[in-house]
Amino acid sequence: MTFSSKLIEKAVESFATLPGIGRKTALRLVLHLLKQDKSVTEQFTAALVAMREGLRECRICHNLSDEEVCQICADARRDRSIVCVVESVRDLMAIEDTGQYRGLYHLLGGIISPIEGIGPADLNIDSLMLRLQEGTVREVVMAISPTIEGETTVYYLSKKLQPLGVQVSVIARGVSFGGDLEYADELTLGRSIAARLPYNR
Amino acid sequence: MTFSSKLIEKAVESFATLPGIGRKTALRLVLHLLKQDKSVTEQFTAALVAMREGLRECRICHNLSDEEVCQICADARRDRSIVCVVESVRDLMAIEDTGQYRGLYHLLGGIISPIEGIGPADLNIDSLMLRLQEGTVREVVMAISPTIEGETTVYYLSKKLQPLGVQVSVIARGVSFGGDLEYADELTLGRSIAARLPYNR
Repeated sequence: MTFSSKLIEKAVESFATLPGIGRKTALRLVLHLLKQDKSVTEQFTAALVAMREGLRECRICHNLSDEEVCQICADARRDRSIVCVVESVRDLMAIEDTGQYRGLYHLLGGIISPIEGIGPADLNIDSLMLRLQEGTVREVVMAISPTIEGETTVYYLSKKLQPLGVQVSVIARGVSFGGDLEYADELTLGRSIAARLPYNR
Repeated sequence: MTFSSKLIEKAVESFATLPGIGRKTALRLVLHLLKQDKSVTEQFTAALVAMREGLRECRICHNLSDEEVCQICADARRDRSIVCVVESVRDLMAIEDTGQYRGLYHLLGGIISPIEGIGPADLNIDSLMLRLQEGTVREVVMAISPTIEGETTVYYLSKKLQPLGVQVSVIARGVSFGGDLEYADELTLGRSIAARLPYNR
Protein backbone atom coordinates (compact mmCIF):
# COMPACT_ATOMS: atom_id res chain seq x y z
CA MET A 1 0.00 0.00 0.00
CA THR A 2 1.38 3.39 -0.98
CA PHE A 3 0.81 6.33 1.33
CA SER A 4 1.45 9.92 0.36
CA SER A 5 1.40 10.84 4.05
CA LYS A 6 3.74 9.72 6.82
CA LEU A 7 1.07 10.53 9.41
CA ILE A 8 -1.44 8.17 7.80
CA GLU A 9 1.22 5.53 7.31
CA LYS A 10 2.13 5.57 11.00
CA ALA A 11 -1.51 5.48 12.10
CA VAL A 12 -2.27 2.57 9.73
CA GLU A 13 0.78 0.67 10.93
CA SER A 14 -0.29 1.21 14.53
CA PHE A 15 -3.73 -0.25 13.90
CA ALA A 16 -2.21 -3.09 11.90
CA THR A 17 -0.18 -4.25 14.92
CA LEU A 18 -3.47 -5.25 16.59
CA PRO A 19 -4.49 -8.91 16.24
CA GLY A 20 -6.79 -9.67 13.30
CA ILE A 21 -6.38 -6.23 11.75
CA GLY A 22 -4.58 -6.13 8.42
CA ARG A 23 -3.39 -3.05 6.57
CA LYS A 24 -6.57 -2.70 4.49
CA THR A 25 -8.79 -2.79 7.58
CA ALA A 26 -6.37 -0.47 9.38
CA LEU A 27 -6.68 2.04 6.56
CA ARG A 28 -10.47 1.83 6.72
CA LEU A 29 -10.38 2.57 10.46
CA VAL A 30 -7.97 5.48 9.99
CA LEU A 31 -10.10 7.01 7.23
CA HIS A 32 -13.15 6.56 9.44
CA LEU A 33 -11.47 8.52 12.25
CA LEU A 34 -10.47 11.23 9.77
CA LYS A 35 -14.09 11.65 8.69
CA GLN A 36 -15.21 12.13 12.29
CA ASP A 37 -14.65 15.16 14.44
CA LYS A 38 -11.24 15.50 16.13
CA SER A 39 -12.90 14.94 19.51
CA VAL A 40 -13.80 11.35 18.49
CA THR A 41 -10.13 10.45 18.08
CA GLU A 42 -9.29 12.29 21.29
CA GLN A 43 -11.93 10.41 23.29
CA PHE A 44 -10.89 7.12 21.72
CA THR A 45 -7.21 7.53 22.55
CA ALA A 46 -7.94 8.98 26.00
CA ALA A 47 -10.04 5.91 26.88
CA LEU A 48 -7.18 3.60 25.85
CA VAL A 49 -4.52 5.55 27.72
CA ALA A 50 -6.71 5.79 30.84
CA MET A 51 -7.33 2.06 30.71
CA ARG A 52 -3.67 1.19 30.19
CA GLU A 53 -2.53 3.56 32.95
CA GLY A 54 -5.28 2.91 35.47
CA LEU A 55 -5.95 -0.82 35.31
CA ARG A 56 -4.37 -3.13 37.83
CA GLU A 57 -4.77 -6.66 39.08
CA CYS A 58 -7.21 -7.32 41.91
CA ARG A 59 -5.18 -8.12 45.04
CA ILE A 60 -7.50 -11.03 45.87
CA CYS A 61 -8.59 -12.74 42.64
CA HIS A 62 -6.21 -11.30 39.96
CA ASN A 63 -9.15 -9.96 37.95
CA LEU A 64 -8.50 -6.74 36.03
CA SER A 65 -9.62 -3.94 38.29
CA ASP A 66 -9.88 -0.16 38.58
CA GLU A 67 -9.18 -0.37 42.33
CA GLU A 68 -6.95 -2.47 44.55
CA VAL A 69 -9.84 -4.91 44.99
CA CYS A 70 -12.11 -5.60 42.01
CA GLN A 71 -15.85 -4.88 41.89
CA ILE A 72 -16.71 -8.56 42.25
CA CYS A 73 -14.51 -9.21 45.31
CA ALA A 74 -15.75 -5.95 46.86
CA ASP A 75 -19.43 -6.78 46.27
CA ALA A 76 -20.94 -7.70 49.66
CA ARG A 77 -23.90 -9.45 47.99
CA ARG A 78 -21.73 -12.15 46.45
CA ASP A 79 -21.40 -15.58 48.01
CA ARG A 80 -17.99 -15.70 49.68
CA SER A 81 -18.14 -19.45 50.33
CA ILE A 82 -17.62 -20.36 46.68
CA VAL A 83 -14.73 -19.55 44.35
CA CYS A 84 -14.79 -20.18 40.61
CA VAL A 85 -11.34 -20.84 39.15
CA VAL A 86 -10.99 -19.52 35.58
CA GLU A 87 -8.14 -19.19 33.14
CA SER A 88 -8.55 -15.55 32.16
CA VAL A 89 -10.64 -12.41 32.41
CA ARG A 90 -12.41 -13.35 29.18
CA ASP A 91 -13.71 -16.56 30.74
CA LEU A 92 -14.73 -14.63 33.86
CA MET A 93 -16.72 -12.21 31.69
CA ALA A 94 -18.36 -15.07 29.80
CA ILE A 95 -19.54 -16.59 33.10
CA GLU A 96 -20.71 -13.23 34.47
CA ASP A 97 -22.77 -12.77 31.31
CA THR A 98 -24.77 -15.91 32.08
CA GLY A 99 -26.05 -14.35 35.31
CA GLN A 100 -26.01 -17.87 36.85
CA TYR A 101 -23.13 -17.43 39.24
CA ARG A 102 -23.05 -15.28 42.38
CA GLY A 103 -19.81 -16.42 44.01
CA LEU A 104 -16.28 -15.11 43.72
CA TYR A 105 -13.55 -15.87 41.17
CA HIS A 106 -9.90 -16.73 41.02
CA LEU A 107 -7.98 -16.08 37.80
CA LEU A 108 -5.14 -18.50 37.14
CA GLY A 109 -3.65 -16.30 34.44
CA GLY A 110 -3.30 -19.28 32.11
CA ILE A 111 -3.39 -23.07 32.15
CA ILE A 112 -0.68 -25.68 32.46
CA SER A 113 0.81 -26.18 29.00
CA PRO A 114 4.13 -28.01 28.68
CA ILE A 115 4.24 -27.18 24.95
CA GLU A 116 4.12 -23.45 25.67
CA GLY A 117 6.40 -23.87 28.68
CA ILE A 118 3.71 -22.87 31.20
CA GLY A 119 4.01 -24.79 34.46
CA PRO A 120 2.09 -24.54 37.77
CA ALA A 121 4.63 -22.01 39.07
CA ASP A 122 3.61 -19.56 36.32
CA LEU A 123 -0.03 -19.56 37.43
CA ASN A 124 -1.78 -17.83 40.37
CA ILE A 125 -1.99 -21.03 42.40
CA ASP A 126 -0.14 -19.93 45.56
CA SER A 127 -2.54 -17.05 46.09
CA LEU A 128 -5.47 -19.46 45.60
CA MET A 129 -4.06 -21.74 48.30
CA LEU A 130 -3.69 -18.79 50.67
CA ARG A 131 -7.28 -17.71 50.01
CA LEU A 132 -8.56 -21.20 50.73
CA GLN A 133 -6.52 -21.54 53.94
CA GLU A 134 -8.49 -18.64 55.41
CA GLY A 135 -11.36 -21.10 55.78
CA THR A 136 -14.26 -19.05 54.36
CA VAL A 137 -14.41 -20.93 51.08
CA ARG A 138 -16.30 -24.22 51.12
CA GLU A 139 -16.39 -24.96 47.38
CA VAL A 140 -14.07 -24.41 44.44
CA VAL A 141 -15.66 -24.62 40.97
CA MET A 142 -13.25 -25.39 38.15
CA ALA A 143 -14.45 -23.49 35.08
CA ILE A 144 -11.58 -24.32 32.78
CA SER A 145 -11.95 -24.97 29.04
CA PRO A 146 -12.31 -28.75 28.48
CA THR A 147 -9.15 -29.13 26.42
CA ILE A 148 -6.23 -31.43 27.19
CA GLU A 149 -4.33 -28.61 28.89
CA GLY A 150 -7.49 -27.59 30.75
CA GLU A 151 -8.11 -31.13 32.04
CA THR A 152 -4.48 -31.36 33.12
CA THR A 153 -4.82 -28.11 35.06
CA VAL A 154 -8.04 -29.26 36.73
CA TYR A 155 -6.41 -32.56 37.69
CA TYR A 156 -3.34 -30.82 39.09
CA LEU A 157 -5.43 -28.36 41.09
CA SER A 158 -7.79 -30.99 42.47
CA LYS A 159 -4.80 -32.97 43.79
CA LYS A 160 -3.32 -29.82 45.28
CA LEU A 161 -6.61 -28.81 46.96
CA GLN A 162 -7.37 -32.28 48.37
CA PRO A 163 -5.57 -31.75 51.75
CA LEU A 164 -7.57 -28.57 52.38
CA GLY A 165 -10.83 -30.47 52.56
CA VAL A 166 -12.59 -28.05 50.22
CA GLN A 167 -15.31 -29.38 47.94
CA VAL A 168 -13.99 -29.31 44.37
CA SER A 169 -16.47 -29.32 41.48
CA VAL A 170 -16.20 -28.89 37.74
CA ILE A 171 -18.67 -27.20 35.43
CA ALA A 172 -20.99 -29.72 33.77
CA ARG A 173 -19.98 -31.14 30.43
CA GLY A 174 -22.58 -29.19 28.55
CA VAL A 175 -19.65 -27.46 26.96
CA SER A 176 -18.47 -29.39 23.95
CA PHE A 177 -15.06 -31.04 24.16
CA GLY A 178 -12.28 -29.20 22.41
CA GLY A 179 -14.40 -26.05 22.51
CA ASP A 180 -13.31 -22.71 23.85
CA LEU A 181 -15.25 -21.54 26.92
CA GLU A 182 -15.27 -18.00 25.67
CA TYR A 183 -17.32 -18.88 22.58
CA ALA A 184 -19.89 -21.11 24.30
CA ASP A 185 -23.43 -19.74 24.15
CA GLU A 186 -24.81 -18.24 27.36
CA LEU A 187 -27.47 -20.91 27.93
CA THR A 188 -25.05 -23.84 27.68
CA LEU A 189 -22.46 -22.14 29.79
CA GLY A 190 -25.04 -21.05 32.37
CA ARG A 191 -26.49 -24.56 32.69
CA SER A 192 -23.07 -26.10 32.93
CA ILE A 193 -22.34 -23.91 35.92
CA ALA A 194 -25.72 -24.59 37.56
CA ALA A 195 -25.30 -28.37 37.03
CA ARG A 196 -21.72 -28.62 38.24
CA LEU A 197 -20.70 -32.02 39.58
CA PRO A 198 -18.39 -33.22 42.36
CA TYR A 199 -14.96 -33.89 40.94
CA ASN A 200 -13.84 -37.47 41.70
CA ARG A 201 -11.00 -39.27 40.03
CA MET B 1 -21.05 -8.23 28.09
CA THR B 2 -20.43 -7.59 31.78
CA PHE B 3 -17.35 -5.64 32.79
CA SER B 4 -16.10 -5.44 36.33
CA SER B 5 -14.02 -2.43 35.30
CA LYS B 6 -15.25 0.94 34.04
CA LEU B 7 -11.87 1.54 32.41
CA ILE B 8 -12.13 -1.61 30.30
CA GLU B 9 -15.76 -0.89 29.51
CA LYS B 10 -14.91 2.56 28.15
CA ALA B 11 -11.96 1.26 26.13
CA VAL B 12 -14.09 -1.55 24.65
CA GLU B 13 -16.87 0.86 23.79
CA SER B 14 -14.37 3.18 22.11
CA PHE B 15 -13.06 0.39 19.90
CA ALA B 16 -16.60 -0.78 19.18
CA THR B 17 -17.51 2.60 17.66
CA LEU B 18 -15.12 1.82 14.79
CA PRO B 19 -16.69 0.31 11.66
CA GLY B 20 -16.67 -3.49 11.49
CA ILE B 21 -15.56 -3.89 15.12
CA GLY B 22 -18.10 -5.46 17.46
CA ARG B 23 -17.84 -5.69 21.23
CA LYS B 24 -16.21 -9.14 21.22
CA THR B 25 -13.50 -8.00 18.81
CA ALA B 26 -13.13 -4.76 20.76
CA LEU B 27 -12.56 -6.73 23.95
CA ARG B 28 -9.95 -8.87 22.20
CA LEU B 29 -8.09 -5.74 21.07
CA VAL B 30 -8.27 -4.19 24.54
CA LEU B 31 -6.96 -7.35 26.20
CA HIS B 32 -4.21 -7.49 23.59
CA LEU B 33 -3.12 -3.95 24.51
CA LEU B 34 -3.23 -4.87 28.20
CA LYS B 35 -0.87 -7.77 27.58
CA GLN B 36 1.66 -5.51 25.84
CA ASP B 37 3.91 -2.98 27.47
CA LYS B 38 2.38 0.41 28.31
CA SER B 39 4.55 2.01 25.64
CA VAL B 40 2.69 0.08 22.91
CA THR B 41 -0.58 1.76 23.85
CA GLU B 42 1.18 5.12 24.15
CA GLN B 43 2.73 4.82 20.68
CA PHE B 44 -0.57 3.63 19.23
CA THR B 45 -2.59 6.53 20.62
CA ALA B 46 0.17 9.06 19.87
CA ALA B 47 0.17 8.02 16.20
CA LEU B 48 -3.60 8.48 16.00
CA VAL B 49 -3.58 11.85 17.72
CA ALA B 50 -0.65 13.07 15.58
CA MET B 51 -2.49 11.98 12.45
CA ARG B 52 -5.77 13.57 13.46
CA GLU B 53 -4.07 16.81 14.49
CA GLY B 54 -1.52 17.06 11.70
CA LEU B 55 -3.33 15.90 8.57
CA ARG B 56 -4.79 18.44 6.18
CA GLU B 57 -6.11 18.57 2.65
CA CYS B 58 -3.65 19.23 -0.17
CA ARG B 59 -4.29 22.76 -1.44
CA ILE B 60 -4.08 21.55 -5.05
CA CYS B 61 -5.63 18.09 -5.34
CA HIS B 62 -7.50 17.63 -1.98
CA ASN B 63 -5.46 14.51 -1.17
CA LEU B 64 -4.75 13.94 2.52
CA SER B 65 -1.40 15.52 3.23
CA ASP B 66 1.15 16.24 5.96
CA GLU B 67 2.04 19.56 4.31
CA GLU B 68 0.12 22.29 2.51
CA VAL B 69 0.87 20.50 -0.77
CA CYS B 70 0.84 16.68 -0.83
CA GLN B 71 3.82 14.49 -1.71
CA ILE B 72 2.36 13.62 -5.10
CA CYS B 73 1.67 17.23 -6.17
CA ALA B 74 5.10 18.26 -4.84
CA ASP B 75 6.94 15.47 -6.70
CA ALA B 76 8.81 17.10 -9.59
CA ARG B 77 9.17 13.74 -11.38
CA ARG B 78 5.42 13.36 -11.93
CA ASP B 79 3.78 14.22 -15.23
CA ARG B 80 1.98 17.55 -14.74
CA SER B 81 0.13 17.33 -18.05
CA ILE B 82 -2.26 14.61 -16.88
CA VAL B 83 -4.72 14.62 -13.99
CA CYS B 84 -6.59 11.56 -12.76
CA VAL B 85 -9.97 12.35 -11.21
CA VAL B 86 -10.87 9.98 -8.36
CA GLU B 87 -13.64 9.79 -5.80
CA SER B 88 -11.57 9.33 -2.64
CA VAL B 89 -8.15 8.81 -1.14
CA ARG B 90 -8.74 5.04 -1.13
CA ASP B 91 -9.14 5.02 -4.91
CA LEU B 92 -6.02 7.18 -5.23
CA MET B 93 -4.08 4.65 -3.12
CA ALA B 94 -5.40 1.73 -5.18
CA ILE B 95 -4.16 3.41 -8.38
CA GLU B 96 -0.80 4.32 -6.80
CA ASP B 97 -0.39 0.69 -5.80
CA THR B 98 -0.57 -0.41 -9.44
CA GLY B 99 2.60 1.61 -10.18
CA GLN B 100 1.14 2.28 -13.66
CA TYR B 101 0.33 5.97 -13.30
CA ARG B 102 2.82 8.83 -13.04
CA GLY B 103 0.53 11.86 -13.41
CA LEU B 104 -1.27 13.96 -10.80
CA TYR B 105 -4.64 13.45 -9.11
CA HIS B 106 -7.76 15.38 -8.22
CA LEU B 107 -10.01 14.09 -5.44
CA LEU B 108 -13.69 14.86 -5.88
CA GLY B 109 -14.48 13.97 -2.28
CA GLY B 110 -17.46 11.88 -3.40
CA ILE B 111 -19.68 11.28 -6.44
CA ILE B 112 -22.97 12.77 -7.54
CA SER B 113 -25.72 10.85 -5.73
CA PRO B 114 -29.25 12.33 -5.65
CA ILE B 115 -30.33 9.60 -3.21
CA GLU B 116 -27.70 10.66 -0.67
CA GLY B 117 -28.29 14.32 -1.49
CA ILE B 118 -24.82 14.85 -2.97
CA GLY B 119 -24.86 17.28 -5.87
CA PRO B 120 -22.03 18.77 -8.00
CA ALA B 121 -21.75 21.70 -5.58
CA ASP B 122 -20.69 19.31 -2.78
CA LEU B 123 -17.72 18.01 -4.78
CA ASN B 124 -14.29 19.54 -5.48
CA ILE B 125 -15.25 20.52 -9.03
CA ASP B 126 -14.59 24.28 -8.89
CA SER B 127 -10.99 23.70 -7.85
CA LEU B 128 -10.60 21.20 -10.72
CA MET B 129 -11.85 23.81 -13.20
CA LEU B 130 -9.37 26.35 -11.82
CA ARG B 131 -6.49 23.86 -12.14
CA LEU B 132 -7.41 23.09 -15.75
CA GLN B 133 -7.73 26.78 -16.66
CA GLU B 134 -4.04 27.23 -15.87
CA GLY B 135 -3.36 25.41 -19.14
CA THR B 136 -0.70 22.89 -18.03
CA VAL B 137 -3.06 19.89 -18.04
CA ARG B 138 -3.72 18.26 -21.42
CA GLU B 139 -5.59 15.14 -20.31
CA VAL B 140 -8.08 14.31 -17.57
CA VAL B 141 -8.53 10.59 -16.77
CA MET B 142 -11.79 9.72 -15.08
CA ALA B 143 -11.08 6.87 -12.66
CA ILE B 144 -14.53 6.66 -11.10
CA SER B 145 -16.21 3.39 -10.08
CA PRO B 146 -18.50 2.20 -12.92
CA THR B 147 -21.73 2.44 -10.93
CA ILE B 148 -24.82 4.45 -11.89
CA GLU B 149 -23.69 7.34 -9.66
CA GLY B 150 -20.15 7.05 -11.04
CA GLU B 151 -21.34 7.13 -14.65
CA THR B 152 -23.51 10.15 -13.86
CA THR B 153 -20.53 11.95 -12.34
CA VAL B 154 -18.31 11.15 -15.33
CA TYR B 155 -21.00 12.38 -17.73
CA TYR B 156 -21.50 15.59 -15.75
CA LEU B 157 -17.77 16.30 -15.58
CA SER B 158 -17.14 15.53 -19.25
CA LYS B 159 -19.85 18.05 -20.21
CA LYS B 160 -18.39 20.60 -17.83
CA LEU B 161 -14.84 20.12 -19.17
CA GLN B 162 -15.81 20.23 -22.85
CA PRO B 163 -15.36 24.02 -23.30
CA LEU B 164 -11.83 23.83 -21.88
CA GLY B 165 -10.59 21.71 -24.80
CA VAL B 166 -8.91 19.17 -22.51
CA GLN B 167 -8.74 15.54 -23.58
CA VAL B 168 -11.07 13.51 -21.35
CA SER B 169 -10.56 9.74 -21.01
CA VAL B 170 -12.01 7.01 -18.80
CA ILE B 171 -10.24 3.97 -17.39
CA ALA B 172 -10.89 0.85 -19.47
CA ARG B 173 -13.75 -1.38 -18.38
CA GLY B 174 -14.00 -5.04 -19.18
CA VAL B 175 -13.51 -8.50 -17.82
CA SER B 176 -10.93 -8.44 -15.03
CA PHE B 177 -7.62 -10.25 -15.44
CA GLY B 178 -7.67 -13.70 -13.95
CA GLY B 179 -11.44 -13.57 -13.92
CA ASP B 180 -13.60 -16.33 -15.31
CA LEU B 181 -15.61 -15.22 -18.35
CA GLU B 182 -18.44 -17.47 -17.26
CA TYR B 183 -18.85 -15.55 -14.01
CA ALA B 184 -18.53 -12.01 -15.41
CA ASP B 185 -21.78 -10.07 -15.16
CA GLU B 186 -23.75 -9.60 -18.38
CA LEU B 187 -23.29 -5.84 -18.53
CA THR B 188 -19.51 -6.01 -18.19
CA LEU B 189 -19.19 -8.89 -20.65
CA GLY B 190 -21.57 -7.24 -23.12
CA ARG B 191 -19.66 -3.98 -23.00
CA SER B 192 -16.29 -5.65 -23.26
CA ILE B 193 -17.44 -7.34 -26.48
CA ALA B 194 -18.90 -4.14 -27.89
CA ALA B 195 -15.72 -2.25 -27.01
CA ARG B 196 -13.34 -4.92 -28.34
CA LEU B 197 -9.87 -3.79 -29.40
CA PRO B 198 -7.53 -4.84 -32.23
CA TYR B 199 -5.23 -7.59 -30.99
CA ASN B 200 -1.56 -6.61 -31.30
CA ARG B 201 1.28 -8.52 -29.75
